[in-house]
Amino acid sequence: MITETQHVQFDSLGLDSGATLEPVDVVYETYGELNAERSNAILILHAFTGDAHAAGVSRKTGKPGWWDNMIGPGKAFDTEKYFVICSNVLGGCMGTTGPSSTNPKTGKPYAMEFPVITIADMVRLQRMLIDHLGIDRLLAVAGGSMGAMQALQWTVDYPDRVAAAIPIAGTWRHSAQQIAFNEVGRQAIMADPDWNGGDYYGGKGPARGLAIARMIGHITYMSDESMREKFGRRLREKEKFGFDFEIDFEVESYLRYRGTQFVGRFDANSYLYITKAMDYFDITNGSGSLAAALEHTQSRFLLISFTSDWLYPSYQSQEIVNALRGRNKDVAYCELSSNYGHDAFLVEVGEQTEVVRGFLASTYRMLGGNK
Amino acid sequence: MITETQHVQFDSLGLDSGATLEPVDVVYETYGELNAERSNAILILHAFTGDAHAAGVSRKTGKPGWWDNMIGPGKAFDTEKYFVICSNVLGGCMGTTGPSSTNPKTGKPYAMEFPVITIADMVRLQRMLIDHLGIDRLLAVAGGSMGAMQALQWTVDYPDRVAAAIPIAGTWRHSAQQIAFNEVGRQAIMADPDWNGGDYYGGKGPARGLAIARMIGHITYMSDESMREKFGRRLREKEKFGFDFEIDFEVESYLRYRGTQFVGRFDANSYLYITKAMDYFDITNGSGSLAAALEHTQSRFLLISFTSDWLYPSYQSQEIVNALRGRNKDVAYCELSSNYGHDAFLVEVGEQTEVVRGFLASTYRMLGGNK
Repeated sequence: MITETQHVQFDSLGLDSGATLEPVDVVYETYGELNAERSNAILILHAFTGDAHAAGVSRKTGKPGWWDNMIGPGKAFDTEKYFVICSNVLGGCMGTTGPSSTNPKTGKPYAMEFPVITIADMVRLQRMLIDHLGIDRLLAVAGGSMGAMQALQWTVDYPDRVAAAIPIAGTWRHSAQQIAFNEVGRQAIMADPDWNGGDYYGGKGPARGLAIARMIGHITYMSDESMREKFGRRLREKEKFGFDFEIDFEVESYLRYRGTQFVGRFDANSYLYITKAMDYFDITNGSGSLAAALEHTQSRFLLISFTSDWLYPSYQSQEIVNALRGRNKDVAYCELSSNYGHDAFLVEVGEQTEVVRGFLASTYRMLGGNK
Repeated sequence: MITETQHVQFDSLGLDSGATLEPVDVVYETYGELNAERSNAILILHAFTGDAHAAGVSRKTGKPGWWDNMIGPGKAFDTEKYFVICSNVLGGCMGTTGPSSTNPKTGKPYAMEFPVITIADMVRLQRMLIDHLGIDRLLAVAGGSMGAMQALQWTVDYPDRVAAAIPIAGTWRHSAQQIAFNEVGRQAIMADPDWNGGDYYGGKGPARGLAIARMIGHITYMSDESMREKFGRRLREKEKFGFDFEIDFEVESYLRYRGTQFVGRFDANSYLYITKAMDYFDITNGSGSLAAALEHTQSRFLLISFTSDWLYPSYQSQEIVNALRGRNKDVAYCELSSNYGHDAFLVEVGEQTEVVRGFLASTYRMLGGNK
């Protein structure tokens, strides 16, 4: 499956902050065919550093999509049955308008002139894309991590536009610990003199700070167990400790590599804006009443969490499940056993595939979509 | 209890790396009185950023010791019964020789010329202090976190010099995840241009990098629960989101404050050296056989861990307990219930006090120390 990105521009987008973006570009990919009734569309919502290239092999880069193990013919999101859409989020750096995009007022990148955005802003722009594609009602919205936040936001903000939602390894509001990890990442970037107040485009950029932020992220995406299994205390290309500050352990080598690699593919200001959007995320808008926030949702729900995920622990999904059940919503919940930590939704897809496949099929049947 | 630090200098200390330090200074404090039989001495081993000022009020700074809630008249380490000693670790920056000390060969601070040290090196220097104080056998060695590592090392390296050991919230070898968090902290320091290859004494120093490292540390010392209880999503001196990159949340304010405050009291190079010593820590010396490593210990053991400590989780203490029991050693273990995460050994001292008090009393009785 060779895939290509598509592009659409909208005149303007009003934001939660009160600011307006004019214009706004969205980059997206689609897989499979939209049926005549336009009833088989699924919107995939990517996590923090993801992009529109969710599945197949990119014609441009030759690389597989970030959820290619979940999307495709015969897979969980079966492109022989469903029309699957994935767009890069607002604030991103992979085609959709973000801080590295050109500010039409100045002809230069927005940088820190870019307005602070929210998860609801991301979803508002996705709704415009769905309108543009002529889809009244999505069969499902689905995503892990920040994708789960967007999925939940969809059900609350546009209850009549989504038949089903699949929030995976997510939460209903960012916790103090989640905010704390994001804040340290932001501080690492902004402490790098090469960040230069965000005005680094065309220059070097805060490579060191961004790499530090990414290293912190990677630790939180893995579990204690998975790090032990993958690295343990294995030394890197040596038999004894170096007694210096070069790399001793495999895990050090891995983190440095991942940090450096990330710098080449992600914009530091997007890191700031997207983490801020996550930290602002609270589906109750500060009221604290999850049941009230979810009261007017009309979707079915499938929530999935993973036993070893300590960044978005199961109890956070379970709170959503309990609130939905308290309002007699149609909700299924699976806690899947995995050692992979938060990364599980990307890598441990065996059981996840079965659960998602069944849930989508029953939703599609209920809507009369199956012949 | 007003306390004063004392000081002793030794001619030389051989290190695991093969290097030798000449001379070596040790700063320490003592509380209570050494009895005539010299049988009531307890050595307290401090954690990563601790110092010799464990208890009482410092005559110099007016500040209470870092474990003042555990050490003093009538407390867990009862200074009416016991003679309590605490020294600053090798590699530290609070009086004992470390990278900020003057290198006698150059007349300038060692900086990165300081040799890489190990937990065993720290303990070797402590043994010299105990020799100097004329104590043949310690009633107990006790400490939390890195203090627990030192306590364990004491029982293995000097089995006939310790009657009892109390490793709290510790481990027998640093795990991949523990190494990873330390490595990111080191990278944050070394990425700061003001680190300048470690040669910053007399100058500005890597204040930003060190603050980032400390922020990461603080997150790992607390638990998800304790951060939620302490901060939740409370905003800092505002009622609405700022929609900028200033401080929104209390937890952000706390982390920035803690980071900045730390810079004033701790040396960045000590941060590098001490974290490296922890990462090198493996009581089995790489053999992986904990039972074999502990075979020749002669102490009684009391291990304590805390339910919400995810940095040094209970299972790591339990592995030590199981290995000791497998060799028929005298070992007690308490997993204490606490929401405070790794910080619990410093702040949640109610039950810890009871457990430690009883264990010390029975040890002292067994040795015939009680009248």
